[in-house]
Amino acid sequence: MQFFKVKTVEETFTLIDEKIPAIEQTEIRELFRALHYILASPVTAKENVPSFDRSTVDGYAVRAKDTYGSSESMPGFLTVAGEVKMGEVPTAEVTQGTAVYVPTGGMLPKGSDSVIMIEHCEDVDTLLNTYRQIAPGENVIRAGEDIREGEILLSRGTKLRPQELGALASLGITHVTVFRKLKVGYLSSGDEIVPYQTETLREGQIRDINYLTIAGLAQEWNVEVVYGGIVRDDFAEFRERARALYDEADCLILSGGSSVGAKDYTTDVIQSLGDPGVFVHGISIKPGKPTILALANEKPVIGLPGHPASAMIIFKLFGERVLRKLKGEKCDRKPERILAKITKNIPSSMGRADYIRARLFEKEGEWWAEPIIGKSGLITTLVKSDCLVEISSEKEGVSQGEWIPVIPSR
Amino acid sequence: MQFFKVKTVEETFTLIDEKIPAIEQTEIRELFRALHYILASPVTAKENVPSFDRSTVDGYAVRAKDTYGSSESMPGFLTVAGEVKMGEVPTAEVTQGTAVYVPTGGMLPKGSDSVIMIEHCEDVDTLLNTYRQIAPGENVIRAGEDIREGEILLSRGTKLRPQELGALASLGITHVTVFRKLKVGYLSSGDEIVPYQTETLREGQIRDINYLTIAGLAQEWNVEVVYGGIVRDDFAEFRERARALYDEADCLILSGGSSVGAKDYTTDVIQSLGDPGVFVHGISIKPGKPTILALANEKPVIGLPGHPASAMIIFKLFGERVLRKLKGEKCDRKPERILAKITKNIPSSMGRADYIRARLFEKEGEWWAEPIIGKSGLITTLVKSDCLVEISSEKEGVSQGEWIPVIPSR
Repeated sequence: MQFFKVKTVEETFTLIDEKIPAIEQTEIRELFRALHYILASPVTAKENVPSFDRSTVDGYAVRAKDTYGSSESMPGFLTVAGEVKMGEVPTAEVTQGTAVYVPTGGMLPKGSDSVIMIEHCEDVDTLLNTYRQIAPGENVIRAGEDIREGEILLSRGTKLRPQELGALASLGITHVTVFRKLKVGYLSSGDEIVPYQTETLREGQIRDINYLTIAGLAQEWNVEVVYGGIVRDDFAEFRERARALYDEADCLILSGGSSVGAKDYTTDVIQSLGDPGVFVHGISIKPGKPTILALANEKPVIGLPGHPASAMIIFKLFGERVLRKLKGEKCDRKPERILAKITKNIPSSMGRADYIRARLFEKEGEWWAEPIIGKSGLITTLVKSDCLVEISSEKEGVSQGEWIPVIPSR
Repeated sequence: MQFFKVKTVEETFTLIDEKIPAIEQTEIRELFRALHYILASPVTAKENVPSFDRSTVDGYAVRAKDTYGSSESMPGFLTVAGEVKMGEVPTAEVTQGTAVYVPTGGMLPKGSDSVIMIEHCEDVDTLLNTYRQIAPGENVIRAGEDIREGEILLSRGTKLRPQELGALASLGITHVTVFRKLKVGYLSSGDEIVPYQTETLREGQIRDINYLTIAGLAQEWNVEVVYGGIVRDDFAEFRERARALYDEADCLILSGGSSVGAKDYTTDVIQSLGDPGVFVHGISIKPGKPTILALANEKPVIGLPGHPASAMIIFKLFGERVLRKLKGEKCDRKPERILAKITKNIPSSMGRADYIRARLFEKEGEWWAEPIIGKSGLITTLVKSDCLVEISSEKEGVSQGEWIPVIPSR
């Protein structure tokens, strides 16, 4: 077997970014059903938004210079020459010395260049007293000020959040070309693992928890999971079942295989799926050191550690990044981190990144992270926690009261 | 019309927490389909997890005291008396002076109290050299150490994240009682608003953007949205359409009505739906001051400001909280905030909370927020942003380089 050097967390992220390609298949989706999909083609604006000059307030459309010199003590005077109706082209025009009432969102009448708010003037029998001077363009959104015809509104690789859907809707776009939804295959291995639905355990057996945590995370990331079941510690059977699931999915996830035999198998099974094969075999991280990342003919394969908490932490840190790349998403950032103060000293080893489960609380306007103590095999440590404290590999632990980066998981 | 005093942001949150009740209907869901639902009944553990003492490492099960005094220079000696198979009850026992091989996750044999890692011993023809002394319980997870039979694992009101699903799966729980999915009705009003699918706009018309942004946020929160369409600025029609949608949904959202007429209607329409009626009418916040919150016969009603960015910000800040309470979720926290440094001075008024769209970036290990300048009517300001900077009502602006709270939206 090839010899692999354990990678740092940073090296692992760099390798993922270098190696994982986007899937090629795209689909056309209704805008309304495209939340969290990734754009596969840029979107160019085919018209201006708004398509006309609009008022941003309730007020009177005027020529700004007709208000110059107006103040509370020395009001100016204009003649009200009509009213703009919502959704309609104004019939009245603004000329020197006149004003036209316009509601918020209404179209500016010809001749006007600004809107004086109703709070700053008074309409006395079509004589408008203006108590303030305004500048040209004040309280107006110009045609094309939000989106300009011909501009690239959204580029390829953009994740469609609610605001991107809104921006697309403003152009009347009803369908978008996106990368299709990913399908990930999940396979558990281990003679002691039984389906979680098993009502009564025999002694020595453990239910397949990781399936629920991994599928739950995948669902949060808009990824479908195909359950490949549980495979016994048998090399030939493992390889065959892994291959079948690999063929069906865009990415294969193998959950641990914690017996020595299975550990040996896992790498060989992954290498058997295709080239270039394993590119990370072990990460200098705690928990989760025995993580495997591979690429077999453009499809990523992830070998997770078997302990439930380790598996979940590794999948959250690196699995999410693998899947974002595979989805075609532009991702120029690490997972989001909060800064919080740590409630106690935690020692750690230089050269290894530590991720500590913790609970956030607020005290006097500051965030504090209270570490949850517990072995990495305990799922309840994750239930009690709502974040991960990150101690990077350059640090020898953290001191009570120190500001540290924290990854929330609510 | 009743007179309402504008509320502060804090007062608004307090009122929401006091007034919004949880819906009463619950349903039984398969565990696999329960992600992000809220538990309606506490879950008590009916068995221990794990159900047996397990090894957390590959090693040899021993009596700890048989290793006392062992060291690299003075190894101890034990006789290897067998091997534990994964998922099976050990046939071998550990007695004084013997050791039994046990893989990670394997069941501890009778007589043993700890496991010495393979790295710390050497098996030479069934003679085990131990190079380290270990303590009782070392490298072992005890039966019930993760979850103890009879304990309340999860309380009513818990949101089911992936780790909660995992913990429930570890007990073999296949179905859970949760509050049913919320259904929210969304109704737009305004003579200038047309469906977003409208291909060609007449001058003065605007597409219904808010529907996409509001429905997108609701989808992120596991809430279904029923689209009530767009209603003209006509009081009777508005009241009738609002009532019909209110009857059908658990919560009604009205999107603004930016003409003066519609503004007057909205409060009256909401008051007509039932008691106790409006409890927030205006918030000292920018943007989004004209927000309305009401409760009509146990159903919340939210009147959003009409500008797209304002509507989205208000719905994110207060709408999410309303819906979490309505879902039955325990929520003892404000929306999550990151601390970041601000790139420029921003003035603001005492007594009013300001929410500024901004973009986060990392520089020399610190997070910085760069404000996006733009009118609140511009949806593209939200597209360009990935967070909201919060300037609380006690502050008169923030200074360049100051640490400020930021709500991310990725």
